[in-house]
Amino acid sequence: MDQMVPVVAGSVGIILAWGLYRLVLRYPAGEGLVREISDAIHHGAMVFLRREYGVLAWFVAIVAVLIAFSHLGFPTMFAFLMGAFCSALAGYFGMFSATRANVRTAIAAQRHGSSTALSVAFFGGSIMGLTVASLGLIGLGSLYLLYGGDPQTAHAIHGFGMGASSVALFSRVGGGIFTKCADVGADLVGKVEAGIPEDDPRNPGVIADNVGDNVGDVAGMGSDIFESYCGAIIATIAIASTMSVDLIDPLGTQQSLMFLPLALASAGLLCSVLGIAAVKLFSALAPANALRIGTVGASFLFSALAYGVTVAVGVSINVWLAVIAGALGGVFIGVVTEYYTGGKPVRDIAAAGETGAATVIISGFAIGMQSVILPMFTICAMIYLSTAVCGLYGVGIAAVGMLATVGITMAIDAYGPVADNAGGIAEMASMGKETRAITDSLDELGNTTAAIGKGFAIGAAALAALAIIAAYVQTVALHVDNFHLELDNPQVLIGMFLGGVFPFWVASLTMTAVGDAASEMIQEIRRQFREIKGLMLGEAKPDHARCIEIATDAALKRMVFPGILAVAAPVLVGFGLGPEALGGMLGGALVCCVLLALTMANAGGAWDNAKKYVEKGNHGGKGSEVHHATVVGDTVGDPFKDTSGPAMNILINVMAIVSLVIAPLLG
Amino acid sequence: MDQMVPVVAGSVGIILAWGLYRLVLRYPAGEGLVREISDAIHHGAMVFLRREYGVLAWFVAIVAVLIAFSHLGFPTMFAFLMGAFCSALAGYFGMFSATRANVRTAIAAQRHGSSTALSVAFFGGSIMGLTVASLGLIGLGSLYLLYGGDPQTAHAIHGFGMGASSVALFSRVGGGIFTKCADVGADLVGKVEAGIPEDDPRNPGVIADNVGDNVGDVAGMGSDIFESYCGAIIATIAIASTMSVDLIDPLGTQQSLMFLPLALASAGLLCSVLGIAAVKLFSALAPANALRIGTVGASFLFSALAYGVTVAVGVSINVWLAVIAGALGGVFIGVVTEYYTGGKPVRDIAAAGETGAATVIISGFAIGMQSVILPMFTICAMIYLSTAVCGLYGVGIAAVGMLATVGITMAIDAYGPVADNAGGIAEMASMGKETRAITDSLDELGNTTAAIGKGFAIGAAALAALAIIAAYVQTVALHVDNFHLELDNPQVLIGMFLGGVFPFWVASLTMTAVGDAASEMIQEIRRQFREIKGLMLGEAKPDHARCIEIATDAALKRMVFPGILAVAAPVLVGFGLGPEALGGMLGGALVCCVLLALTMANAGGAWDNAKKYVEKGNHGGKGSEVHHATVVGDTVGDPFKDTSGPAMNILINVMAIVSLVIAPLLG
Repeated sequence: MDQMVPVVAGSVGIILAWGLYRLVLRYPAGEGLVREISDAIHHGAMVFLRREYGVLAWFVAIVAVLIAFSHLGFPTMFAFLMGAFCSALAGYFGMFSATRANVRTAIAAQRHGSSTALSVAFFGGSIMGLTVASLGLIGLGSLYLLYGGDPQTAHAIHGFGMGASSVALFSRVGGGIFTKCADVGADLVGKVEAGIPEDDPRNPGVIADNVGDNVGDVAGMGSDIFESYCGAIIATIAIASTMSVDLIDPLGTQQSLMFLPLALASAGLLCSVLGIAAVKLFSALAPANALRIGTVGASFLFSALAYGVTVAVGVSINVWLAVIAGALGGVFIGVVTEYYTGGKPVRDIAAAGETGAATVIISGFAIGMQSVILPMFTICAMIYLSTAVCGLYGVGIAAVGMLATVGITMAIDAYGPVADNAGGIAEMASMGKETRAITDSLDELGNTTAAIGKGFAIGAAALAALAIIAAYVQTVALHVDNFHLELDNPQVLIGMFLGGVFPFWVASLTMTAVGDAASEMIQEIRRQFREIKGLMLGEAKPDHARCIEIATDAALKRMVFPGILAVAAPVLVGFGLGPEALGGMLGGALVCCVLLALTMANAGGAWDNAKKYVEKGNHGGKGSEVHHATVVGDTVGDPFKDTSGPAMNILINVMAIVSLVIAPLLG
Repeated sequence: MDQMVPVVAGSVGIILAWGLYRLVLRYPAGEGLVREISDAIHHGAMVFLRREYGVLAWFVAIVAVLIAFSHLGFPTMFAFLMGAFCSALAGYFGMFSATRANVRTAIAAQRHGSSTALSVAFFGGSIMGLTVASLGLIGLGSLYLLYGGDPQTAHAIHGFGMGASSVALFSRVGGGIFTKCADVGADLVGKVEAGIPEDDPRNPGVIADNVGDNVGDVAGMGSDIFESYCGAIIATIAIASTMSVDLIDPLGTQQSLMFLPLALASAGLLCSVLGIAAVKLFSALAPANALRIGTVGASFLFSALAYGVTVAVGVSINVWLAVIAGALGGVFIGVVTEYYTGGKPVRDIAAAGETGAATVIISGFAIGMQSVILPMFTICAMIYLSTAVCGLYGVGIAAVGMLATVGITMAIDAYGPVADNAGGIAEMASMGKETRAITDSLDELGNTTAAIGKGFAIGAAALAALAIIAAYVQTVALHVDNFHLELDNPQVLIGMFLGGVFPFWVASLTMTAVGDAASEMIQEIRRQFREIKGLMLGEAKPDHARCIEIATDAALKRMVFPGILAVAAPVLVGFGLGPEALGGMLGGALVCCVLLALTMANAGGAWDNAKKYVEKGNHGGKGSEVHHATVVGDTVGDPFKDTSGPAMNILINVMAIVSLVIAPLLG
């Protein structure tokens, strides 16, 4: 297969994303109040992103200089800058179009009904999905053309992953703090204290809340998936370039094994495009069915196509089995997540509300911890199957198999916040009950797809990180004689204990940040209700901008330390305690990150849906004691599922890829 | 040093414990209502323990038969039975005397004041402390005389640890479920619904609540410390018997290295006895000072004495440094725990109550996660220092150094529930405000010492488990050629992921058990208030026995699965996936168990004290909105700190010791 394929496929993907964007713009954007509100959201989101990137630019510049002056040299620095740039670009494009699609979804729901609204919202998400996959392919494809020909220079490609992952961590943490501080603040004062509905235009925090959905769930999630996607491909290339080919697949050549992940990802992009077309084609069906046809169809098609790709690249068919293991495992973890955040556990939490908020918290937490069992067993099974067919290379390939159709998975994920925002705009601009009913049904579906997407993201991040760690071990072994990571080596043990600390530390930092920022937001919203005359009567306008500013400042200030901690920890441990300790640290961090990510995401999702279940009239419905108890659960779950939990995915990938990049220096 | 010393020291310790028991009995036990209440608590506790041991007897018998028929043979079976028996006996003695001391403490407070009350409560706890240390020394000392002479037969001694640890896990989990189901049930209905004070005699659940304090905090804690204590000694003997002596200490002989942990523990027992005497001597001082003189004095004395022991046994002085690392590390972890459960973090949680229960939970959880950082760094430092002087043997010796003065540490820990119970009896029997004030001040001090004790127990369990794991690796290496636990081996990786699952699984099971059992208890207490006429007026008596029965049934039923899971998991993984996977599993489980144990214990302790801080009049005091919010935190913290959290310590030790026992069969 021609080595130009990934770059070409990526370029075509970008053109299609551009086409979708033009298509979305053709839908009417409304006028008057509707336009004003949606512009405020768009503007707030873009201002946040620009300010965030302003901070990141400093970080990226400093790290780039450090890389250039280390023995890694210019190629790694170039790749690092490219990775950071592509990651930022993916977030920017995705959010730009999502904040254009939201208002058009609301108008479409009002004028044309559910089917058209689904199309617009889904197109909005698809732009993000295609951008993520395409930018990854263009970036990595061109670096492969530059440096991939020789296993000696291939190491430079890792820099791309480091750039992507570190930008992703900052974006995820910053976005997560922004969205939850706005959400918690607006809800607590608006719904609880002032007694006005969610998304009421009189609430000063409501625009910030809607901005937050984009900043956290679109841009944050996009950079999260982008870095897992690139991490999986990079790790597979790295393993192929450092491991003895005979141990992987006696049929293949080193070059073919190195190229395979890029070829698979190109095929995956094609399948995603076809899946997106299928959703549009079937948009007259119930939205849930249309989305399912698109994703499941794309997965099946990819599984078949991957067989052809494996043959075409000239690798043994065993390797294809690892692709299948990854693709199936990803689907299964998604299904388990759906059960825990939508099935019987949710009703159990709601029932626990009968004895108050404390039992809601205890049962939700117990369910979150229980929800790790099946996904972890699945990950073990994937490791077992994929390494049985082609060693640790198989883990990388399984991760690529899971992430290859990221174009459509991400589209479905990003569709959720677009629909959510459409609902917010419909409410704020009083677009009528029927419109709100349509956007609500789209939003509800979005919650389910988002939960599945989160489970999928955790599984993918775990496999990608594992592959990167394997690549790290291989790379160090090239430079350090007799390098072994034995568990009974005190260095490795100390590393493992240290590795366990970081996920808990970062989770604690991000949760505290949300708490502190939310309390600032609460004070500001209370102040506006108190000081702006006529606000409650709808005669005066709230100062939205001040709320956005508070959330932005808090997010930018509080994202710095966790981000630097994640990037600096491997460097300090690697140079301070040695490559064995660093290896142990990655192992300990991997296990703890995955466990915390699953627990927090699923407990948070289950609490959220338990509250919604009660709001539908169960256990006394809205306003009952049980409802108040489940609201407490939902509020605790907010930072769990949208700030600290998602940060875990990226944290382990950042630590792993930084270790891989500095590996040659640890000799 | 003579090899009879441990057995002789242990026997003397038992005689002293018996003497203390006779001393406690000399204090008046009250009459009438006081006597009646204290008899009900004593009776309830002993009935629970007998029924629990009835269930455990089946488990022990089955496992003993399995061991006898395996290749491990009779010696291991004998040691296993002895370990189980000694653990049960320690729990029985401790609880028997604690439930005799509680009422005498209350009477002493009423008639003689604070100093005498402290003496009685502390003697009650000391009996437990001395029993734990003495039974460990007698059991392990005599097994050492039997099997320790030849490194070939020394393996049988491990059975003692397996017996002790499995009984401990069941006791800890069963006791934890009992105490928290009674506590949550009695509090929610009594304090919140019926509006009567804590420990009010009209509350049907109040005797069960007081029984629970003994069952969970005395018997459960006792068997917990007992198994860590024995585990540390056993692991050190095992490492010495399997490792090349030259790698540990070129000066010592194998026999001297094997005997050293027993010699150190004997010296530790002596120091504990002197420490206990010092507390009595200074009991006229403020209670906190008297306790501090006893513990710190014992630690210092032990550090000096350990030097002499090391010389007398004929081991190089390097090894003594590992003892000091362990002893200092234990103290430091205790201090950190005290800060997180008593310092600024507690006031922060209380302040978070200003914005409701949700922020109390978020901030408490963040603080719990943050509290792992320093203890984990301390553990890393201890590993680093102790392995630097004498390899992995040093880790075992550090654990022994930490646990050697367990006699007094445990005494101070068990003193807490005795004082707590004395307060309960004083309240129920209306012994007057002044009596209650004295027992309250003793109880408050008990909460602090209990928190320090918990931190200490976690640190000790972590080091002990690590030493056992090291012994496991050494033992397998004797039987399996070319045995390596490399982190990039897929078997090891799968094991690590599996190992991370079990702590989360067991935590989830135990939390759910508390939730379910508490809701049964709530229904029963509500029923009694509804159906027993005149109960609220104090004219009719509640049916205490029924509540105790519910708690007992729930505890016995729900302790079985987590216990069997812990014992069976290493066997299934070891024989199913091989010794590499089992090694990885122990590594993953160790890190996660320690992290969860610290998070849960410290978050729980901080929530508890935040509630008490508000009750002292801060943020509006009792009955305010902030108080309600902190009560939610306290209730969530109950299963965290007293059921699931403590179970983590033993879980890792059970898994490790079972692995060590089956290690020779995995060849």
